[in-house]
Amino acid sequence: MVSAKELGERKIIQLITTCLEPMPNAPIPFGDDASAIDLGNNKLVVINTDMLVAKTDVPESMTLWQAARKAVIMNISDLAAKGTKPTAVLASLGLPENLTEEEIIEIGKGLNAGAKEYGTYVIGGDTNQAQDVTINCVALGICQSGHLIKRSGAKAGDIVAVTGAFGKTAAGLKILIANLSGPDDSGALVDSVLMPRARVKEGVALAQSQTATASIDTSDGLAWSLHELSQASGVGFCLDYLPVAVEAENFAKHHGFDPNELALYGGEEYELLVTINPQLWKKAKQAVETVGGELIKIGVATEQKQVIIKTGNGTVAVEARGWEHFKT
Amino acid sequence: MVSAKELGERKIIQLITTCLEPMPNAPIPFGDDASAIDLGNNKLVVINTDMLVAKTDVPESMTLWQAARKAVIMNISDLAAKGTKPTAVLASLGLPENLTEEEIIEIGKGLNAGAKEYGTYVIGGDTNQAQDVTINCVALGICQSGHLIKRSGAKAGDIVAVTGAFGKTAAGLKILIANLSGPDDSGALVDSVLMPRARVKEGVALAQSQTATASIDTSDGLAWSLHELSQASGVGFCLDYLPVAVEAENFAKHHGFDPNELALYGGEEYELLVTINPQLWKKAKQAVETVGGELIKIGVATEQKQVIIKTGNGTVAVEARGWEHFKT
Repeated sequence: MVSAKELGERKIIQLITTCLEPMPNAPIPFGDDASAIDLGNNKLVVINTDMLVAKTDVPESMTLWQAARKAVIMNISDLAAKGTKPTAVLASLGLPENLTEEEIIEIGKGLNAGAKEYGTYVIGGDTNQAQDVTINCVALGICQSGHLIKRSGAKAGDIVAVTGAFGKTAAGLKILIANLSGPDDSGALVDSVLMPRARVKEGVALAQSQTATASIDTSDGLAWSLHELSQASGVGFCLDYLPVAVEAENFAKHHGFDPNELALYGGEEYELLVTINPQLWKKAKQAVETVGGELIKIGVATEQKQVIIKTGNGTVAVEARGWEHFKT
Repeated sequence: MVSAKELGERKIIQLITTCLEPMPNAPIPFGDDASAIDLGNNKLVVINTDMLVAKTDVPESMTLWQAARKAVIMNISDLAAKGTKPTAVLASLGLPENLTEEEIIEIGKGLNAGAKEYGTYVIGGDTNQAQDVTINCVALGICQSGHLIKRSGAKAGDIVAVTGAFGKTAAGLKILIANLSGPDDSGALVDSVLMPRARVKEGVALAQSQTATASIDTSDGLAWSLHELSQASGVGFCLDYLPVAVEAENFAKHHGFDPNELALYGGEEYELLVTINPQLWKKAKQAVETVGGELIKIGVATEQKQVIIKTGNGTVAVEARGWEHFKT
C-alpha cells in the first residue's frame, strides 16, 4: 500500500483528478491556478480555494494574524495570475479546542487585513474543531471571458517575463526554519515569507491590455512554475536572465550559497510568471508599469520542450523541482 | 485566557465576524447559510464553503468515500436553502502522510459522486498535508436576485414548514457513536447519517415559485434552526406539529427515548425549514410536490419572539440548543 508520503503532492493531485469527471466546456481546465464558470454575456466567475495548515505551512515565527492574512493572499494570488481581481473572499477555519479568544481574534483580524489590502471583503465562511489550525480560503472574482489568462496559451517565440526578482523567500525560510543568520538586510527576506504580496495590479493590467498568452503564479517556485507552464502550453523555455533579489544575493554570498539556486528552487513566492506576445511586449511592459509594477524579461518560449538557462559557457537544464507537500 | 472549548462555536463565529468589515450592499448579510455577490443584470453568485474534519465530524463507521461525498452534500444543502442549485464544486484536501493510494482514490470518487448526484462537477481544488483528513468544499451557483431566499424574510402569520420528517440522524448517531442497537428498520437511521441528501429540487422549486419568505437548512438541528430563523427574521414560531420519521419513532420506543427530543435536538439533518406566505401556501406545496418532494406544515410565525410547541396540555418552549462544535 503506497502512502501519501511516498506518492507526493503532484501524484496525489493526479490520482484525485482522475476520479473527477470534467465539467463540459469548462472555461479553465483542471489543474490551472484557478477555476472558472461561464456566466454567459462574455463574463466568467474565476474562483480559487487553498488550504493553509499550521503544522506544515506556517513557520513557528509566523503569527496567527500573519498566517490568516497569508491564507487570503495566496488565494488572491491565484486569481491575479488569471488576470482577475478579487470580488470576495470566504474562509473556513479549523481551530484546536485550546486556542485562546485572543488567538481567534488575531485570525479574524488577519483575514480582514488580507482582504482589505486588495480592496475586497470576507463575506462568509465556516468554523470547525480541528487538531491543528487550518485556514481554508476561497477567492472569487468576475472576469471578461476574453481577458482570462490561462496556463496553456504560450507559443514559441513569446517573451517570458516575471513581475519581480526571486530568491527572497528561499533565503527567508532558511533563516526562519533552518535558523541560519542573515546579513544586515535580512529583514526583507523574513518579511517576504511572513508578509507575502499578490500581484493583482500586474495581473489585471496584463489581462486588460490583452498582451499575455499564459500566466501562472510562482508559489511552488520559479523552476517548477516554468515546467508547469511548459507542460500546459506545450512549449519549452530558454532563459537568458535570472533576476535575483539583492537581499537574496547578499544572503547567498554571506553563506556561500548559489544565488540562482535560491531564485529557481524556492517557493511561497507570489510573483507572476507570464508569456507575452513579442509584438505586444512594449504595451505589456507599459501596462504593468502604469500600475506601479515591473515586468522583467527573462527569456523566450521555444518549440523544443525543455526548460534551460544560458550560462557563461552554454546552457544548463532547469530542474523540475520545487515546493511539494509530503515531500519537501 | 478563555479557550475555544469554553467559548463554543457560536461565540467563536461572533468573535470572528466582529473582526470582518462587511461588504457594502452584500446581497446576503454575514451569518446566513450562504453568501452572495451581485453580478448586475438581476443575477447573483451564491456561494458557500464548509469544512469536514475527520476526527470531529466523521463517525468511525463512515468510509472516506462517504465522508468526501458528505463534504460536497453539506455545501450543496446550504445553496439549496437559498433556493440555488449548484453550478460547480471545489474541494481542498488536507491529507495525513500515511493515507494510502486506495484511500486517496476513495476520497476523489466520493467527491465526484456527491457532485454528480446533484448534476454538477468538481472543477478545482487544492491538496495539502495535514494531521487529520480534512475536506473543505465550496459550492456555488447562479441565482436570480428576486429568487434568493434569505433567513431574514419571515413575517408573523407566515406558515412554517419543513421538507421532511426529523429524528433519523439523531437516532443514527446514537447507533453509530454510542453503539446503541436499533430495531429492525435501523438501516435507514444509519443511512441518514452516512448518506445525507440535500433538498436542492425543493429549494429551487420554492425559489422559482416565489412563495417562501425565509429558509435555512437544518444541519444544526431543527430546534437550533428555528431559533436562527427567529433571530434573523425578528419573529417567533408556534409549532403545532412535529413530523418524526417512523424509523426514529420506533427507535425511540425501543429505547424509551422521547421521539420529539430526537426530532428537535439532533443535527446533521439536511431538511429545509422554510416560512411561506400563507396566501401562497397551496402554490408552494404544489411547487415542491411537482418536483417529487413534500412540504409539511409544522406551525406559524408569530409576533411574539419565542419558539414554542403546542402539547396536549398547553405549550412548551423549544430550547435553543443543537449541534455545536467544541461543545457537543
